[in-house]
Parts: sequence; structure tokens; C-alpha cells
Amino acid sequence: MPIEQKEGETLDDLQNGFYILQGEKCFRYGIDAVLLSAYAKVKPGERALDMGTGTGIIPILLAAKTRGESFTGLEIQEKSADMAKRSVALNHLEEKITIVQGDIKEAASIFGAASFDVVVSNPPYMSGRGLTNQEEAVAIARHELKCSFRDVAEQAAAVLKSRGRFYLIHRPDRLAELICTLHEAHLEPKRMQLVYPFADKAPTMVLIEALKGGNPGIRVEKPLIVYERPGVYSEDVRIMYGDGR
Amino acid sequence: MPIEQKEGETLDDLQNGFYILQGEKCFRYGIDAVLLSAYAKVKPGERALDMGTGTGIIPILLAAKTRGESFTGLEIQEKSADMAKRSVALNHLEEKITIVQGDIKEAASIFGAASFDVVVSNPPYMSGRGLTNQEEAVAIARHELKCSFRDVAEQAAAVLKSRGRFYLIHRPDRLAELICTLHEAHLEPKRMQLVYPFADKAPTMVLIEALKGGNPGIRVEKPLIVYERPGVYSEDVRIMYGDGR
Repeated sequence: MPIEQKEGETLDDLQNGFYILQGEKCFRYGIDAVLLSAYAKVKPGERALDMGTGTGIIPILLAAKTRGESFTGLEIQEKSADMAKRSVALNHLEEKITIVQGDIKEAASIFGAASFDVVVSNPPYMSGRGLTNQEEAVAIARHELKCSFRDVAEQAAAVLKSRGRFYLIHRPDRLAELICTLHEAHLEPKRMQLVYPFADKAPTMVLIEALKGGNPGIRVEKPLIVYERPGVYSEDVRIMYGDGR
Repeated sequence: MPIEQKEGETLDDLQNGFYILQGEKCFRYGIDAVLLSAYAKVKPGERALDMGTGTGIIPILLAAKTRGESFTGLEIQEKSADMAKRSVALNHLEEKITIVQGDIKEAASIFGAASFDVVVSNPPYMSGRGLTNQEEAVAIARHELKCSFRDVAEQAAAVLKSRGRFYLIHRPDRLAELICTLHEAHLEPKRMQLVYPFADKAPTMVLIEALKGGNPGIRVEKPLIVYERPGVYSEDVRIMYGDGR
């Protein structure tokens, strides 16, 4: 059965043997999804959940680079979830990846407690405060309209097995809140990497690995620099894009 | 009255017009004190407290670089406090700097609540766990034998005025705990800078500015790189040493 590419959608080559359907104007994945997929570790046989999967970019990248047993993408928006399902089908990844349309706040009741080894999330970065007339679908992906970070952390903790790992990417200006919220949800931050556009600029993103039930103590890693000069990715980032990790 | 330099002590030039007495073998200040003094802002007319001042290096550096009204150093160890007092006297800084021998855990009762605009601290970095037979005086400066970080944060919050600022330097592996403890003490982390020995290595120190009663939201700053090549400080750090900040 041929996979339908709808009007206003593009089919993009991920350079790793796989393709993804995206909206021409919105619902397009960014470098954050690439960085998070590279940062997350999924070991052979593990089951992973992506909370807020959008068009399914992260499960597809993780299926390409890891030997995890299964990857589930949870997405509240029908249009994104539909694109994600068709991308999974056209890549013949139906046995590896399942897309579920649903609410992050109900993850534990949808999937059951302690049902994943790994949770990843590239959640909405911004609060809903001060939001003006932005297109609703974009606003939901970017702003905490449907769920707060606390919802994300609490649901991640609920669906993770003991000693399960939660990987997320977020904005550094939320760092203190992220760390406290994770700690309170018994997801102890164990590894963190700041993402700097250039070596002499403030960071624009932060990657965190938290361990359910972990003890205190975090390893802050070397800076991840995105550009070696304007318009040219650093070698670290070129590797992530080049081999699809 | 000539200031006494005791046996086993050195008198070192701070390159900013001031001098400091230090022990030949221990009680010697490190780059952390220099970084913290450069990071802390004391505005004209403000009153600052250094919790765990050791030989008084931070009050002396802050008195040199800022126009704060007064600087108080609190130190539990008699020998360090005695050296600090003599260093203050030999620099003729008695009207600016007061050294008090006392326990950080009793700071609020010693100084009273809401009595400082600024608190700085370079506290013991390591827990007391697993500590073997190290010299006691050194162990107290480095390990949390006399006070925990929670004690430091709670006492800093107590002696700070509303909207007062707390500056600290610590180890990145304690970052999650530091941030949560500060937040719980109503000292909201507002600014953070990681200190990397080299641009491609993991950080070894973290500088934090917290605001008493502040709202969530933190600015993570550009990396502070210590060395431009092995044995040669970066320009940022040379400036800190060169002009005594």
C-alpha cells in the first residue's frame, strides 16, 4: 500500500536510510531533536517512549541508531500523530515504532506504570504566559498549553521502571526549575551538557539525563558547540547529522 | 604597631596594593577565591558577608575591587581567623573589614536577620563521608564536617535582606543539589557560569548568583575557560589576577 503524502507536506531524507514527512511550514523538526537523539542512550532490548513526539522524528532517529526493542511516540495533536504514523509506515518501521495519539498527562494510564526503560522528551520550552495569536498547533508544540514541565517529569517518572533513564532537552533559562522538578519527581539529574552556539556565547539549550531513584551527584560534561563558524556546524554536530544519530 | 608574621606563615603580594598572610603549607587561597571575588558584585554602600572566609582572601579582594561599605569574614577556625585579622590590620583595612571567629550555622544569631546585602561563600566542596586521617584544619576547610551546604544556604538566606544576593563557587558534581537546596531556601538561582579548565574538557567549578525571594529564571553564561594552553591562563583569568579582582 503506497503511503499517502498529503498536500502541504514534504518528504525529507534523514541521511540515515530513513525519511520523514513534515509540514511545509510548521511541524518541522529542528536541531534539538537531533541533539536529543544523539544524547539519549537506548540499550539493546530496551523499550523507549518519546513524550510529545511531533512528527515522530525522535523515534525514527533512535530506531536508526540504537538496538532498542521498541520505540513509542506519544503525541496529542492529531495532525502530527497522523504524519508520524505515515512516516513510520513508509520506513517499514511498524514493528519497531508505535505512534499513539494521546495526552502526556495521561501517559501512566495509557501505558501503565513502570513500562519503559527509557523516556525521552523535547517538551514545549515556553510557558503559556503572554501568548498572543499564534497558530494553535504551533503554540501547543512550543508553549506549555497542554502540559507543564512538572506534568512531563511526573508522567516520565510514573512510566519508567526503577533505575530507568529520562533524557530531555530544554532551555537553559529553565535550568533551575528543571533540576528541582526532576529531583522532586525522583528523577535525579545524573548527566548534563550545555549546548553553546559558539564557544564564546551563552548556551541556548541544555541536555539532561536523569535516573529514576538515582542518588545525588551529576556529571556536567564538556561544552557542546554547535557552530565552528557562522553557518558551518562543528564536527560534533556534523557527525550527528551525517550518520543520522 | 607592627603586625606579627608567625612562624610557618608567608606574606604574599595580591598585586592589587594589598597583601595576605597565609600558611606555608596549608591555608593558602586558590583560584576559586579569585574567581568568586571576580564574579560577586558588591555595589557602593552595600554590606557583604563572606561565610567561611579562611585567611580573609575574599573580603580583601572585594574591598580592593568594589565600593561596598563593609565586608565581614566569618571563620570557625581560630588559626585562620587570627591570620585573617592580622592581614586586615597590615593592609589598614580595619574600617572596611571585620573578621569574626564563629560558626556558619550560627550566622543569623551572630549577625541578626536581614543584616547583609550580599553574602559570598566558597564552602567546603566535599562531603565528610569516607574521610580518612587528613589534618583536621585542612579537612574542615575542604569537607562538610562543621556545616553542610544546606546550613550555608539557610544561614545565607537568614542574614540576607529581601532581594539580597548570594554568590558561591562549588563543584559541578554537586550542581543539582546546590540548585534544589538554594531554591528550597528561597535563594533563587539567577545566574550561573561553569568554569572549564580547557574549552574541550568537563567543568571543574561552577559560579552561582542567587537572589533572595527571586522569581524562577536563570541566565547561564558563556563558558569561563581557565587556561588557553597548559600552564598559561586565559585572558579572562589573567585580568582577574592582574588587577586583583
